[in-house]
Amino acid sequence: MSVGIDHPNFEKIYAEVQQFYARHIQLMDEGRAEEAALTFAEDAFMLSPPKIAEPIRGRAELGARLREAADTLSAEGVRYRRCHTMMTVEPQPDGRLFVRAYVQVVRTRGGESVLHAMCVCEDVLVREDGELKVRERVVTRDDCS
Amino acid sequence: MSVGIDHPNFEKIYAEVQQFYARHIQLMDEGRAEEAALTFAEDAFMLSPPKIAEPIRGRAELGARLREAADTLSAEGVRYRRCHTMMTVEPQPDGRLFVRAYVQVVRTRGGESVLHAMCVCEDVLVREDGELKVRERVVTRDDCS
Amino acid sequence: MSVGIDHPNFEKIYAEVQQFYARHIQLMDEGRAEEAALTFAEDAFMLSPPKIAEPIRGRAELGARLREAADTLSAEGVRYRRCHTMMTVEPQPDGRLFVRAYVQVVRTRGGESVLHAMCVCEDVLVREDGELKVRERVVTRDDCS
Repeated sequence: MSVGIDHPNFEKIYAEVQQFYARHIQLMDEGRAEEAALTFAEDAFMLSPPKIAEPIRGRAELGARLREAADTLSAEGVRYRRCHTMMTVEPQPDGRLFVRAYVQVVRTRGGESVLHAMCVCEDVLVREDGELKVRERVVTRDDCS
Repeated sequence: MSVGIDHPNFEKIYAEVQQFYARHIQLMDEGRAEEAALTFAEDAFMLSPPKIAEPIRGRAELGARLREAADTLSAEGVRYRRCHTMMTVEPQPDGRLFVRAYVQVVRTRGGESVLHAMCVCEDVLVREDGELKVRERVVTRDDCS
Repeated sequence: MSVGIDHPNFEKIYAEVQQFYARHIQLMDEGRAEEAALTFAEDAFMLSPPKIAEPIRGRAELGARLREAADTLSAEGVRYRRCHTMMTVEPQPDGRLFVRAYVQVVRTRGGESVLHAMCVCEDVLVREDGELKVRERVVTRDDCS
């Protein structure tokens, strides 16, 4: 039942994953598109309907899309922040990590911050040269499902 | 002052508790009532006014109430998600864990997600066959206190 | 890239920091001003515009301001809760910890809880007699930046 915690050094993995997401999401939300792209695997895959209804594939394409989105938001004076909570981490025998978390997306514009969407983020993390990277991401919004 | 952290392996307990809550709450919120019931102790106790103004006692009764609630929400097209943060974990000499956390309850219906309630959740966790279970839960809502 | 996690016992530090913030913020939010003051270093510094536009310096002054704020909120029937997420912890060679986190501030008054502000909290933590304390804090609000 207590999936994951039998893994030796589970506490080490869990802390590393929390730190990884904190940095990854801060880079994403703060428009640091090139650094954010490096937190995805070379062959990453991302799906997040309705905005990203067709999968984005590969770090290069992800970086380009992140740059475009960051520039648009900056021009519009909009800031999104994604607040992850309730994160399950399930280490797989091959070293991949299945991570599932709740995400409150908060949107700020013109002096007001509002809850924009409540989502679930399901990721597969892998290691490249020892560092965690997002290889697969599927985000579902409660208001679209 | 730094309650809890003197405990040997505090980091192991803290990670395990975080993983426990993530799974426990995901099961609760996603209507998996029978699995959620198993994350409570056999003789569990839950109080969460105003909705649960009289304590619910025992895993069987909790399971029945969770099933009923899940079916009602499903029929109404409502989804709740509980986002726990600011969690203190205080291991007791007898092995029980006192856990106190903030809970933002987000409610989604008809294409809109809103902050439904801000709560504090005070739990006593115990182990049954090595697995963490909720033995006592008292939830208080800021808008009712 | 994976800042911090190379530190030996990173998982221990990360769990301790999470527990520290949970207790620190619960004390702050629940008007326990004198205990909250003790979670700041003797020579602490805090800046949180627009409300705290001039830095507050020193534990004594912080304690006095926290007491004043708690009394005012209590008289007005207002409760704030700060929900920290996405926390990066970067241990420094001298033992200080740089911590950066998202903060959703939730405000409850008269039967309604609302998202009041979305902030970023940048702290420097130090140890006094082995215990973590906030030495520097700069909070920025998304709706004011």
